[in-house]
Amino acid sequence: MAFTEFRPLDEKSLIEYIKATPSLSSKLDNNFDDLKIKEVGDGNLNFVYIVSGSTGSFVIKQALPYIRCIGASWPMTKERAYFEAVTLKEQGRLCPEHVPEVYHFDHTMSLIGMRYLEPPHIILRKGLIAGIEYPLLAEHMSEFMARTLFFTSLLYNSTTNHKRAVAEFCGNVELCRLTEQVVFSDPYKVSEYNRWTSPYLDSDAEMVREDNTLKLKVAELKSMFCERAQALIHGDLHTGSVMVTCESTQVIDPEFAFYGPMGFDIGAFLGNLILAFFAQDGHADQGNDRKTYKEWILRVIDETWNLFHKKFIELWDEHKDGHGEAYLSAIYNNLELQQLVREKFMKDLFHDMLGFGAAKMIRRIVGVAHVEDFESIKDAGKRADCERRALELAKMLLKDREKFQGITEVVTAIQKIQL
Amino acid sequence: MAFTEFRPLDEKSLIEYIKATPSLSSKLDNNFDDLKIKEVGDGNLNFVYIVSGSTGSFVIKQALPYIRCIGASWPMTKERAYFEAVTLKEQGRLCPEHVPEVYHFDHTMSLIGMRYLEPPHIILRKGLIAGIEYPLLAEHMSEFMARTLFFTSLLYNSTTNHKRAVAEFCGNVELCRLTEQVVFSDPYKVSEYNRWTSPYLDSDAEMVREDNTLKLKVAELKSMFCERAQALIHGDLHTGSVMVTCESTQVIDPEFAFYGPMGFDIGAFLGNLILAFFAQDGHADQGNDRKTYKEWILRVIDETWNLFHKKFIELWDEHKDGHGEAYLSAIYNNLELQQLVREKFMKDLFHDMLGFGAAKMIRRIVGVAHVEDFESIKDAGKRADCERRALELAKMLLKDREKFQGITEVVTAIQKIQL
Ligand SMILES: Nc1ncnc2c1ncn2[C@@H]1O[C@H](COP(=O)(O)OP(=O)(O)O)[C@@H](O)[C@H]1O
Ligand SMILES: Nc1ncnc2c1ncn2[C@@H]1O[C@H](COP(=O)(O)OP(=O)(O)O)[C@@H](O)[C@H]1O
Ligand SMILES: [Mg+2]
Ligand SMILES: [Mg+2]
Ligand SMILES: [Mg+2]
Ligand SMILES: [Mg+2]
Ligand SMILES: [Mg+2]
Repeated sequence: MAFTEFRPLDEKSLIEYIKATPSLSSKLDNNFDDLKIKEVGDGNLNFVYIVSGSTGSFVIKQALPYIRCIGASWPMTKERAYFEAVTLKEQGRLCPEHVPEVYHFDHTMSLIGMRYLEPPHIILRKGLIAGIEYPLLAEHMSEFMARTLFFTSLLYNSTTNHKRAVAEFCGNVELCRLTEQVVFSDPYKVSEYNRWTSPYLDSDAEMVREDNTLKLKVAELKSMFCERAQALIHGDLHTGSVMVTCESTQVIDPEFAFYGPMGFDIGAFLGNLILAFFAQDGHADQGNDRKTYKEWILRVIDETWNLFHKKFIELWDEHKDGHGEAYLSAIYNNLELQQLVREKFMKDLFHDMLGFGAAKMIRRIVGVAHVEDFESIKDAGKRADCERRALELAKMLLKDREKFQGITEVVTAIQKIQL
Repeated sequence: MAFTEFRPLDEKSLIEYIKATPSLSSKLDNNFDDLKIKEVGDGNLNFVYIVSGSTGSFVIKQALPYIRCIGASWPMTKERAYFEAVTLKEQGRLCPEHVPEVYHFDHTMSLIGMRYLEPPHIILRKGLIAGIEYPLLAEHMSEFMARTLFFTSLLYNSTTNHKRAVAEFCGNVELCRLTEQVVFSDPYKVSEYNRWTSPYLDSDAEMVREDNTLKLKVAELKSMFCERAQALIHGDLHTGSVMVTCESTQVIDPEFAFYGPMGFDIGAFLGNLILAFFAQDGHADQGNDRKTYKEWILRVIDETWNLFHKKFIELWDEHKDGHGEAYLSAIYNNLELQQLVREKFMKDLFHDMLGFGAAKMIRRIVGVAHVEDFESIKDAGKRADCERRALELAKMLLKDREKFQGITEVVTAIQKIQL
């Protein structure tokens, strides 16, 4: 059986596919006797199979031409698998310690074979719900973001290479449009897909749809998202796109990748940490009031930004005489000036990050796709209380992001709201 | 003789080319008897031939693989002719009254055939030097800019069409790089190509190279130029890219076109009008003190921005329920909010325009390519005085552009400096 045309696989046909594909079968030493295949896609869009035997293992991810959690009624190009594969490889090149290796890509089949992130790796979001501390999380995620964003920006690259890459990723437009819709549009209007913890948040959702200032601010961010090709961003960097153990942090699922604003990635990650924070009260029980854990989350937020800042500036400094065309060393030729431009750059990025982070929080409370952090709180009233606090903070961040001078002020604002 | 490979034409081989090209020869009714061919390229980059006979006329523009005014030592892709042709057609579709019709494009030969803008059409810059008033200039240029910028932005287009076009114009990267170098980089560093009215402006040029604040500000604009795909911009919209009579205004030479920030075009045009203003004192003589003419230029600056503002908002309003994806009507659904977002948009655009306009002025005084407005002032001391005032204004605009609330304040600032 040849696979010369696209077709959706299942656990059975996948075995045939693997047998017909040397780069995969060799990973198993061509031993298929005790092979186990399990579909584990808990994500929203695609099918993910864990393939493991006594002689090896890998993961197969296949994109179908629609959005899995909605169904065939919401078509979505399977070309996204191509952009995911290209990005996994590029991010893997830039930050191999935090990205699973790609073993195989089949364009026709929209199929990626990659390293199986074996147990105890779990999705970070699940770890956050379970109240597990990851001591290296801030270190690793700041490393991933600093390296992938810096090395794909004009701080490092020539305009020629940058524009070539920008042009290619313009092809991932359908996924960009999905983000535009579900992050920047739907929450601010009546949409059949929107939902929220009803009736508790009915008036909160309505207030979002009728808040002129909020809509003014989100328009600005949407334009930046659509127009500004600053770096190759992951595009979906929430806590469900990170797999962790206590020692390892791995970023998966960059199918939304394109050249966009850096702040979108950093904001996605930190915004989802803030959601995790506000969900903790819903997970508290007599055995664990989650107080210490909440403090740990706040520390991670603080440290992730500060470490990102430090690492990014270090990379900039290291490559300031390189081929990056944004700040030529012949112009930015004294320490005071270098200081000035870097402060300006990081301040703007910080504010972009806060805006995008806030937008990502809002959409998870009143938009189509919610987060397990809140969904797993069974008591709807309790859940709504948690969500309302998160929403309140997000609205404040979105409206007044320029007023925040640093991450400490953000942490203080979070602490204030939860009291 | 076939033209299956690129080769530079001259007046003689061009006749052969025309005879072999039906879309051109038909313009002359196949009558070549009294044909006159004259090379008139006074521009910096390309060769331009006027072809005219008793039965018809047209202009032929050919790009060679280097920059004409520098020579073969500065190579430049001849692919620019392709982007010029595509843009002439697109801008002609959007604003036919102000763009010459394209009759013919030959990709292999990097050659465009277009309408001959017959006398009394002259290059606007020359008219400004001669002190000629063009009563319709503000009306026409605001129309050209409002239509070409609005209809190629996300205010009018879907993300899908926008990204497709953005990707295509990423191909014009060599021309973008040229702008990056000569506008945003060279004036702020020592460069073999820089020149200025020496020795008069030696210390002024040095001050530009040593002004940290200026360099901080120009970095911001350079990033916007490189990263922000807001609309299809002309990319070289100075007063030498406009041909005029008292009734007609025609925009030529969009070989630098790409998806960039709108403010770059508006700033180029207004910045060059400001240069024309400051040059007037150098053209004054006993017969004409140029006082009235200077007032007319200031009125054109004022009117161009105000009319642009009005027309742009009118287009936005007219198409607010269209397929443009930036501001969905279901979200921006009340008059107060529409007012808010438009004011914000236009205020930001105004400040972008001032920044880019200022950068374009500076580079014409201390960078590689100067303007005839100043160059035609024979007395070097007088010329330097004019240039210094323009430079002073430009530096102020670049540093403090956010402080200007409207175009009237800019006009007032210009008037203050010339006293
Ligand atoms: N390389 C991997 N190793 C182990 N598990 C994985 C791997 N990739 C994905 N998974 C599992 O599959 C789930 C869905 O994968 P994901 O790439 O996020 O798909 P989707 O695009 O549908 O969200 C993840 O949440 C994770 O549990
Ligand atoms: N369509 C036209 N009709 C009449 N003259 C033209 C036309 N196009 C160009 N020219 C003349 O040729 C000159 C150079 O043309 P331009 O397109 O600006 O070339 P360059 O790219 O080299 O600057 C113009 O300044 C103008 O005098
Ligand atoms: Mg996922
Ligand atoms: Mg995904
Ligand atoms: Mg020209
Ligand atoms: Mg008209
Ligand atoms: Mg030109």
